[in-house]
Amino acid sequence: MTSFQPTPDDRFCFGLWTVGWQERDQFGEATRAPLDPVRTVHRLAELGAWGVTFHDDDLLAVERNRDAAIAAFRKALDETGLVVPAATTDLFKHPVFKDGAFTSNDRDVRRHAIRKVMRNLDLAAELGAKTYVFWGGREGAESDAAKDVRVALERFREAIDYLAGYVKEQNYKMRFALEPKPNEPRGDILLPTIGHALGFISTLEHHDMVGLNPEVGHEQMAGLNFVHGIAQALWQDKLFHIDLNGQHGPRYDQDLVFGHGDTKSAFFLVDLLESSGWDGPRHFDYKPGRTEDAEDVWVSAEANMRTYLILRERARAFRADPEVQEAMRACRIDELAVPTVAADESHASLREEEFDVEAARDRGYHYSRLNQLAVEHMLGSR
Amino acid sequence: MTSFQPTPDDRFCFGLWTVGWQERDQFGEATRAPLDPVRTVHRLAELGAWGVTFHDDDLLAVERNRDAAIAAFRKALDETGLVVPAATTDLFKHPVFKDGAFTSNDRDVRRHAIRKVMRNLDLAAELGAKTYVFWGGREGAESDAAKDVRVALERFREAIDYLAGYVKEQNYKMRFALEPKPNEPRGDILLPTIGHALGFISTLEHHDMVGLNPEVGHEQMAGLNFVHGIAQALWQDKLFHIDLNGQHGPRYDQDLVFGHGDTKSAFFLVDLLESSGWDGPRHFDYKPGRTEDAEDVWVSAEANMRTYLILRERARAFRADPEVQEAMRACRIDELAVPTVAADESHASLREEEFDVEAARDRGYHYSRLNQLAVEHMLGSR
Amino acid sequence: MTSFQPTPDDRFCFGLWTVGWQERDQFGEATRAPLDPVRTVHRLAELGAWGVTFHDDDLLAVERNRDAAIAAFRKALDETGLVVPAATTDLFKHPVFKDGAFTSNDRDVRRHAIRKVMRNLDLAAELGAKTYVFWGGREGAESDAAKDVRVALERFREAIDYLAGYVKEQNYKMRFALEPKPNEPRGDILLPTIGHALGFISTLEHHDMVGLNPEVGHEQMAGLNFVHGIAQALWQDKLFHIDLNGQHGPRYDQDLVFGHGDTKSAFFLVDLLESSGWDGPRHFDYKPGRTEDAEDVWVSAEANMRTYLILRERARAFRADPEVQEAMRACRIDELAVPTVAADESHASLREEEFDVEAARDRGYHYSRLNQLAVEHMLGSR
Amino acid sequence: MTSFQPTPDDRFCFGLWTVGWQERDQFGEATRAPLDPVRTVHRLAELGAWGVTFHDDDLLAVERNRDAAIAAFRKALDETGLVVPAATTDLFKHPVFKDGAFTSNDRDVRRHAIRKVMRNLDLAAELGAKTYVFWGGREGAESDAAKDVRVALERFREAIDYLAGYVKEQNYKMRFALEPKPNEPRGDILLPTIGHALGFISTLEHHDMVGLNPEVGHEQMAGLNFVHGIAQALWQDKLFHIDLNGQHGPRYDQDLVFGHGDTKSAFFLVDLLESSGWDGPRHFDYKPGRTEDAEDVWVSAEANMRTYLILRERARAFRADPEVQEAMRACRIDELAVPTVAADESHASLREEEFDVEAARDRGYHYSRLNQLAVEHMLGSR
Repeated sequence: MTSFQPTPDDRFCFGLWTVGWQERDQFGEATRAPLDPVRTVHRLAELGAWGVTFHDDDLLAVERNRDAAIAAFRKALDETGLVVPAATTDLFKHPVFKDGAFTSNDRDVRRHAIRKVMRNLDLAAELGAKTYVFWGGREGAESDAAKDVRVALERFREAIDYLAGYVKEQNYKMRFALEPKPNEPRGDILLPTIGHALGFISTLEHHDMVGLNPEVGHEQMAGLNFVHGIAQALWQDKLFHIDLNGQHGPRYDQDLVFGHGDTKSAFFLVDLLESSGWDGPRHFDYKPGRTEDAEDVWVSAEANMRTYLILRERARAFRADPEVQEAMRACRIDELAVPTVAADESHASLREEEFDVEAARDRGYHYSRLNQLAVEHMLGSR
Repeated sequence: MTSFQPTPDDRFCFGLWTVGWQERDQFGEATRAPLDPVRTVHRLAELGAWGVTFHDDDLLAVERNRDAAIAAFRKALDETGLVVPAATTDLFKHPVFKDGAFTSNDRDVRRHAIRKVMRNLDLAAELGAKTYVFWGGREGAESDAAKDVRVALERFREAIDYLAGYVKEQNYKMRFALEPKPNEPRGDILLPTIGHALGFISTLEHHDMVGLNPEVGHEQMAGLNFVHGIAQALWQDKLFHIDLNGQHGPRYDQDLVFGHGDTKSAFFLVDLLESSGWDGPRHFDYKPGRTEDAEDVWVSAEANMRTYLILRERARAFRADPEVQEAMRACRIDELAVPTVAADESHASLREEEFDVEAARDRGYHYSRLNQLAVEHMLGSR
Repeated sequence: MTSFQPTPDDRFCFGLWTVGWQERDQFGEATRAPLDPVRTVHRLAELGAWGVTFHDDDLLAVERNRDAAIAAFRKALDETGLVVPAATTDLFKHPVFKDGAFTSNDRDVRRHAIRKVMRNLDLAAELGAKTYVFWGGREGAESDAAKDVRVALERFREAIDYLAGYVKEQNYKMRFALEPKPNEPRGDILLPTIGHALGFISTLEHHDMVGLNPEVGHEQMAGLNFVHGIAQALWQDKLFHIDLNGQHGPRYDQDLVFGHGDTKSAFFLVDLLESSGWDGPRHFDYKPGRTEDAEDVWVSAEANMRTYLILRERARAFRADPEVQEAMRACRIDELAVPTVAADESHASLREEEFDVEAARDRGYHYSRLNQLAVEHMLGSR
Repeated sequence: MTSFQPTPDDRFCFGLWTVGWQERDQFGEATRAPLDPVRTVHRLAELGAWGVTFHDDDLLAVERNRDAAIAAFRKALDETGLVVPAATTDLFKHPVFKDGAFTSNDRDVRRHAIRKVMRNLDLAAELGAKTYVFWGGREGAESDAAKDVRVALERFREAIDYLAGYVKEQNYKMRFALEPKPNEPRGDILLPTIGHALGFISTLEHHDMVGLNPEVGHEQMAGLNFVHGIAQALWQDKLFHIDLNGQHGPRYDQDLVFGHGDTKSAFFLVDLLESSGWDGPRHFDYKPGRTEDAEDVWVSAEANMRTYLILRERARAFRADPEVQEAMRACRIDELAVPTVAADESHASLREEEFDVEAARDRGYHYSRLNQLAVEHMLGSR
């Protein structure tokens, strides 16, 4: 039987802010002590993780001297072999960002935000991060009177292009990944979904180096199909990073363990990532439950990885099953790959073709069988 | 007092399928007789509408002979002066489209769908339509096993580019407008939001002639802010058409009268359309209630226009109120229009600037007052 | 390995309207021919089902003569041994019910609705149905101006009590089960959730014989936890019947195969039903996909039962696993069963007890481990 | 023109925790200083409010000595004439409540919760509060494995009945009001809606003194119609208190200013409260925006009251308009008040009545006109 024991080859990684979440929420006080990033790196390595990511401020959770904190963090990375695949900036916690960072009405704040990112881009580059994530959690509004969204998007574009220019100027080998979210903590956040961010990116001067960091729960908060979103991002060559977690549909941002929300969607997501040859990080952006103690944190961290590995095994078996392959052919899934119009076909030729639409109305697609095979593979009953 | 009597200058238009809806739903039989398009044109003209739109099959609601139906429709247009600003194809009602039109796994169906559009493009061009709408209501899936979304998007792109090529070849003065929707009648529909469609358009060969036809209810079914979506579409110069109606958040597609869902969002939408100089049609895509009789239909049609006109008056008064203008300045809304970085400013210069972030934490944005002014203007109490 | 072959002991049953659904939806025409109830009974029996349910009008799908239809149906039941555990009335399809049945503003319609139910109650009693279901799909409104809900609830109460009185008078051994739904086809439906129906029942004269028929998808359309809802219904002794299917959160009513929506919730539902000793029917109220042909229908019917059986096996293994039992104790789940206040404890005694709240703040609940054990059992990986 | 200046006769009241919210959220630090309850009482009085409510811990926001805090608060009440219509207990902020208060798996915590309530009940009684509110925000779970909901409901019932017994024993003139909420901060909260709480109350020993405190946003987070919910609560004589605020459908708990979410629903809510003769408090449970400074807080507080007063004026004009009254009769709203079955009517008599259902299918309900009249009254355009 498979052990489902993670190894660095699985490319699992966690944000410092995930296991380090102190359980403070909108309605209650913190219940866990701050977690030393050095300890996190060691524990993650013991559990079989491959990498660790951070917001600039995460490094200062315990050691408040920035240089000392960075030195200790580097040392832990060296000792464990953990890599830093990605980093990001905290542009939401401090009150100064209450109306946004790149799109605050206050120009001083916008300039401060850009500076804060630049400073951490240098550190991220030094630590070898290949992806820099932008979650614009405070870029938005509670009222449509409060913000001219067209102007705000102009400022957002300005900031991303300016910082992309900086990265190119510095010759950092780094790409940007925008993380969409529909709402919370703002009433409505700019670039609310994978789609809106893809549309925005198409307007950038430096669109070549800007892609996405979609998060499971963020799309599901809008009731959208995350697997479809990831498929579109892959199709547009814009999946640069991914945040895995769990969510129960439209409600507050839950950040559950991966697979502990919509498990069937998680199964199909793993199937898509694995079958499409995705070789980027499997990054978990979850929060240990507020009911949990300091040791439970590591149990929940491990649960993310185990669930991914189980689902990976299930997805591989699904694809390898001859009955599944036969069922897919019966659904004519391969026929969708055939271009609708032949390469040299004229408009007139297509137009004149005869087709008995009434005769075709009864053709079935036989998805019932394929769906059930998928569910049974997921449940490990085949 | 304003009469709120619509005139053709207001550019109000309706789809034949709106007032003509026979009240058949998922759980019940039709309760109204089919409505003759000729009668619809005349009644809409009497109510003060400017235009009428149609699906190819709508014209055949009563008169089944296509040529006769078209001739009668043209005559009614001539008699009333109503224009046809847009048209579209029914690619969802017939069983043959049950797995989609451009993205059905069945290639024969895909070819049939393209032919059906080509045929109606010719008619739309003859009738002077400047916009051709694509709502891909059946392009989607109920299960993630059933459809490789990357391949489906490839077929979608093929179809749109092929048809755009046809329009260019024919020298039709027509643009395409994609209409996003997240779900219903499919479990998940491709291009579920304004954003996903904007991303998709950026991949097209003929992206210059393809934009959007967003619908109020479709975005609100995903809990998204419609006004934000329209702002992004305007900012990307991709608002080609708009479908106005009402919806009560995530649930089935309600197609209520405009302003009868989220009235406050409707107020800000009208404010955005009017203040941005939108000169396209105000197209209502609603359904008269199933409880209503043949005469109530026209009462509900008129309600859409009256509500728009009332909200337009409210929005203009809001913008013109000196107290509002003062409140906007207090919110520093104008400051957002100032570029964050000066034109000739170096990375180093920005980076070295000093900013006392702690001193800035208490700066308020004063949105409370502006929001309340907006609500009071909407309610006609100022 | 388990075969997951259903038998009548499993108490699986289906509505005639489920496999018989003709695929007509809000946006498209019917694509399957009507299904003869006699054929349905035989096919369900072959698949291992135990029972069949119906709306009065379902029996007339093919044979329009009511007596002949009933006779043929009875014969099929006799030949196959299938039972009729429940029946219901179609109070939504005919246009006359467009404003509701028991709560239509039109008194004639209300009286007609009561008569229609009475007539079918007699048939249901003859066929041995122990439960009579009421889904008030048209009892509601699209606008808060349209209906005084207090008065409508009064009429609803009148109708249910009147019909309950009739059943008692006739000495039928039958109980009523109300089926809540939040919306669709009405904008808002009365008794929108399990809770609202429980509240309503407490006001009835004949509350003893009225309980619930909750449906998976109906609660999930409101984002509510179905397992919690069923637990409350069980706790109040009001779970009289259950409708099993699948749904992807707040959107149109999907009626997917059981377990093909939120699979994890389906796992916990089966766990609750089985561990609580629920001995009522396992009734599937789903719709075969519109893409499916006449034979696919039976594949999808079977999928409901197989998924239930797989999940039942998983749930039993979960409960039997000593590691799970140990994890539950660590979570102190058993401690919740201990009354908070001792039987003879005075207010004063409780009040004076000392408790070091600060010392208790760090006590963890260790749910992470238990949750992961549940997920791994569901996925068949333990 | 009406001034919309609140007076104590309007019975407006606020929780100390509303204007006192320090703007700390899940993703960001507090940005406003704690607000002295004494100052709040004086400012609210100046604005025209009638009352103030509190959680036990709210009184200690600035003055940490409980007796001194209470004395200062009383003095402010005396000086201003503000009343305390209701009070409640904070059973969610402290880490000890992380798994719930009355339903925590930890019996020590459950006993502590009961004690904390008893202590504050005494104070509430002294201050003259007639209603004691219970919001069980931590009573719930993130995973269905974690909590046996039947057992948890048993503990919930035990606690409420125990405390009700205490109030009766002490001869306090006080009733209990349960406040439902579907989720946040727990994944799923017990008693998620008005309905579930009504069902629960029907099981209580002391059900006579327990009713509801519904909150606008809490029901709307589940996509439910708040006006319908309030109507059912009124119909069951269980509306004991009400929390007014604003929300944009299913998402995180927004606590917007009243009327700043779904304005149309707010209009119909005011119409229902006023036309039904509701004489309880109009209690605002909102949060000033996190972007706002210390002075903006009072602007937002005032906005709640002004919006209520404007909507009240609109609702009264709506009811008084002869055209509206005529439209209501055309909708046959009065006919719904006529019992469906006559007082002495036999089952047989009703059953034998003839009704031409086909002739009745075309009867319209004419809601379009009434709805539009309501919208136009709300917008102040009639």
